[in-house]
Amino acid sequence: MSLLVTGSIGIDTVKTPHGVRENCLGGSAVYFSMAASFFSPVRLIGVIGDDCPFDLAGVFAGKNVDLTGLEIRPHSKTFRWAGSYRDDMDDRTTDCLELNVLAEHPPTVPERFRDSKFVFLANTTPKLQLEMLGQIDEPLFVAADTMNCWIQNCRADLNVLLERIDCLIINEDEAKMLAADLNLIRAARKILDMGPSVVIIKKGESGSITCDAEGHQFILPAYPAADVTDPTGAGDSFAGAVLGYLAQTGKTDFDTLKIAVAYGTAAASFTISDFSLQGLTSITKNEIDKRLETLRKLTHF
Amino acid sequence: MSLLVTGSIGIDTVKTPHGVRENCLGGSAVYFSMAASFFSPVRLIGVIGDDCPFDLAGVFAGKNVDLTGLEIRPHSKTFRWAGSYRDDMDDRTTDCLELNVLAEHPPTVPERFRDSKFVFLANTTPKLQLEMLGQIDEPLFVAADTMNCWIQNCRADLNVLLERIDCLIINEDEAKMLAADLNLIRAARKILDMGPSVVIIKKGESGSITCDAEGHQFILPAYPAADVTDPTGAGDSFAGAVLGYLAQTGKTDFDTLKIAVAYGTAAASFTISDFSLQGLTSITKNEIDKRLETLRKLTHF
Repeated sequence: MSLLVTGSIGIDTVKTPHGVRENCLGGSAVYFSMAASFFSPVRLIGVIGDDCPFDLAGVFAGKNVDLTGLEIRPHSKTFRWAGSYRDDMDDRTTDCLELNVLAEHPPTVPERFRDSKFVFLANTTPKLQLEMLGQIDEPLFVAADTMNCWIQNCRADLNVLLERIDCLIINEDEAKMLAADLNLIRAARKILDMGPSVVIIKKGESGSITCDAEGHQFILPAYPAADVTDPTGAGDSFAGAVLGYLAQTGKTDFDTLKIAVAYGTAAASFTISDFSLQGLTSITKNEIDKRLETLRKLTHF
Repeated sequence: MSLLVTGSIGIDTVKTPHGVRENCLGGSAVYFSMAASFFSPVRLIGVIGDDCPFDLAGVFAGKNVDLTGLEIRPHSKTFRWAGSYRDDMDDRTTDCLELNVLAEHPPTVPERFRDSKFVFLANTTPKLQLEMLGQIDEPLFVAADTMNCWIQNCRADLNVLLERIDCLIINEDEAKMLAADLNLIRAARKILDMGPSVVIIKKGESGSITCDAEGHQFILPAYPAADVTDPTGAGDSFAGAVLGYLAQTGKTDFDTLKIAVAYGTAAASFTISDFSLQGLTSITKNEIDKRLETLRKLTHF
């Protein structure tokens, strides 16, 4: 079934213990689309300025990502982010953030994308996420991400959003903040009470916890990576493979969701193995499948 | 096969967000033995002072724990520990530590325990662990725990110990410290290079990673606990069920080890559900088996 993503396209500068990459391609919609495209055609909605140095058609060549919804806005500047990772790669500092075109009005969903059935609203203000969602006719399964600043500063909008989505994909610390509960299992239950029927909590190198409103739980560790080069985009790649697999199967039952989360974990493990998109662009679907089987062996007893 | 544990027996005072328990029974050998006894008879080696207020024979009544190796030393004082847990239960502060009898000479392993095949050397100075191990004739599988202060201050002894044990069971932060590597997968490999053929790294609420020298890996999340009352003893209960299951089966191959770790995870989840030993003493083996099956459902895909 059709899969649409709205999110950022950015120019990233990343420092990790493995080196520095300046002005490389990043952004939530980019990582999401690249990971999701292994499973399903993707409709990307995003906006860049006319300063953007990347040939996105070239980046996604042969990848089944429809760029009809990509707006290149004249006289605007592309979103920029710079960040540094500590030695243990577990936490990062934002060194510089220029919203630029993301602070302007959102892009328009093209008419022929309004029938999209699976939708991912990548992290941005809840108000914008609601505006984007309002342009989709009858979505079957809507997932969204959010973050600390919207939880703290845009709670009313976020509460409306939570009632209108099916799945929240969120980091551990943000889940605890949103639920005002330091126990992650209780936090997950409280988030389900806010509206979504599924919550997927990302725990970085400790994997993820998936819970639904019917009481199902699925806990999956991260793939054990001895070499983490750049964690940027891991969460969006995870979400991309999750939604991509769901859209591919057209199903959202809990057993399908478990496989989807395992695929998300596999995709994220490739993203973190290299800078920018290189970890994802250098692999085949077959390698993701093999990693899924490795994950199965690593976790089953 | 026979299972012997050497470790502490203590008087604990614990503060958690759920309350305070003063002067309750604790100690690594106590938690270990209680958990292990669900699977295998246990030979407990430990020493207390004549001030010890607990009737250990009563505590272990009907539990298949042989207290022949328990020494009550006249004119000595029992080990005492007091600690506080933060709201998120993830970290604790030691408020008071009185080694007392643990700072004296170690207890003697009774003659008829010297044929023990499975041995757990709970956390104490590596020198003492080596002395205890020297009293066992031909052990089949020796596991040990250690901690930051011995890694930092007794490294030479610890290095000798690591060459003489089969399995190190250690906390995440301590594994990183021991290996001088912030990446846990690389840290595990480096620890295996120091001697043990198996390393089990405990990650608290994020579960555990088990690696062996032949390249096998097993990653298991913790049981998702919505109510954690007191994490004290979780690691020793984990080790107790791991060694207890290995001793029960008499096997140490990786597939058996995976089940053992799953049992360890199940046992620890009961320990943290109540203060002191109450979480472990109030259950049956059948409940541990059920939790193992729940863990399987929660993690398999």
